[in-house]
Amino acid sequence: MMRYKATISYDGTKYVGWQRQKNGLSIQEVLETAMQKVFGCEVECTASGRTDAGVHAEGQVIHFEVETGIPADKIPFSVNNCLPEDISMLACEVAPKGFNARFSAKRKTYKYSIYYSRFPLPMLEHTHYRSTVPMNVEAMKEAAQKLVGTHDFKCFMAAGSNIKDKTYRTMYSVDVEGKDNVVTITVCGNGFLYNMVRIMAGTLYYVGIGKLTPKDVGRIVAQKDRAAAGKTLPAKGLCLVSVEYGDGDQNTSEDSLS
Amino acid sequence: MMRYKATISYDGTKYVGWQRQKNGLSIQEVLETAMQKVFGCEVECTASGRTDAGVHAEGQVIHFEVETGIPADKIPFSVNNCLPEDISMLACEVAPKGFNARFSAKRKTYKYSIYYSRFPLPMLEHTHYRSTVPMNVEAMKEAAQKLVGTHDFKCFMAAGSNIKDKTYRTMYSVDVEGKDNVVTITVCGNGFLYNMVRIMAGTLYYVGIGKLTPKDVGRIVAQKDRAAAGKTLPAKGLCLVSVEYGDGDQNTSEDSLS
Repeated sequence: MMRYKATISYDGTKYVGWQRQKNGLSIQEVLETAMQKVFGCEVECTASGRTDAGVHAEGQVIHFEVETGIPADKIPFSVNNCLPEDISMLACEVAPKGFNARFSAKRKTYKYSIYYSRFPLPMLEHTHYRSTVPMNVEAMKEAAQKLVGTHDFKCFMAAGSNIKDKTYRTMYSVDVEGKDNVVTITVCGNGFLYNMVRIMAGTLYYVGIGKLTPKDVGRIVAQKDRAAAGKTLPAKGLCLVSVEYGDGDQNTSEDSLS
Repeated sequence: MMRYKATISYDGTKYVGWQRQKNGLSIQEVLETAMQKVFGCEVECTASGRTDAGVHAEGQVIHFEVETGIPADKIPFSVNNCLPEDISMLACEVAPKGFNARFSAKRKTYKYSIYYSRFPLPMLEHTHYRSTVPMNVEAMKEAAQKLVGTHDFKCFMAAGSNIKDKTYRTMYSVDVEGKDNVVTITVCGNGFLYNMVRIMAGTLYYVGIGKLTPKDVGRIVAQKDRAAAGKTLPAKGLCLVSVEYGDGDQNTSEDSLS
């Protein structure tokens, strides 16, 4: 058996998320079904991490093992022939020694997109959160810098999470960009707690509409005050942009990125 | 009865086009059904022009007549409550005297979007045409200028059209923009023949991939040579951006914009 590393992209609108579930169709199920057609046997795909229902991916990374005569770089052509329009394989290679899509991941980049409009804009609606008031992008940029660095992000974790300790994460960059009526928040970190990006986005959004100040955000991070942080923005505005792996690609992450 | 002018936007993916048809759901039908719920009576909507199945709109303009106590600027809130996520009313006002969404239109702006990628990108797939080879944007920009001005655009009309004469149209601007892997062609003109924008886009695309030169495009326009023009690109890459009306808003267009 050979292990492969592949990059996939999906529009998560119609799916229950990455992971197989009994209550609906998942990206994983559709992908594994396509692979079964191509390779003639069951294939299990392991992703860098789950994405929730409605979350999109431009560059999710997976690994899978299979015995096949198809050269690695031709696998995307074969697999895409069996995939619907909203899921696509963008690259495939033989995995480096010891590579694990989940445990070898060093950094992940997510983006959260918000647009301002009094009324829904159908061309943006399934990939953006809509704000009915304009946002102060400069204030959001300033607040974003309070999130950069290594912090205990307990206050940016969904209430239902069962992680108690190990809530420290390092954010290498948190960038806010405004263009026309769209604001994009791009976060690169070594790992994310459950719903963390959506709560960070909600907190920066509150700064954008004047419900919080950049100073408040610094205080929330320092005091780990979940109640003071912003609301969890909806899944549809979130997109996993890319996953980076180290040169060695051994299992070096202590905790799993999620 | 009061006549209203409204701007609407739609993601055309799931629809048979603007106009009511027996073989499927149209934007017009969904919109008129929503208005019937809001106003309690049948309402007929007239658009600036039809859009084909799969074509999108950021700023389609319509008119309709109704007797209602709802102030014009509140109508979008009421109507949007009865519309699905992929159709939205963005503005509504009492129509100027003599206004007709179709016959008063002076200029329309369309954009056609193309992306380059070896493999389908799900986040772009339903709003862009995909090129599997990179495009020469500079050559496309140069060729676009050959289309600006008043020409007999017979060669950029779908074969099945029943228009024989009156095939002259004026293009005020034809702009090509390249950003990362996406090329956008934006065309503003006083009217368009059937499939004209999609054939213009196909011709500029052929220049982009080296199948035609900018000089060829000048010759095609001058010689009205449909066979030499590019293929008709698919509907999903096309979007009606905006419709402009004159100050007077009387019926001054000789032919209907389509």
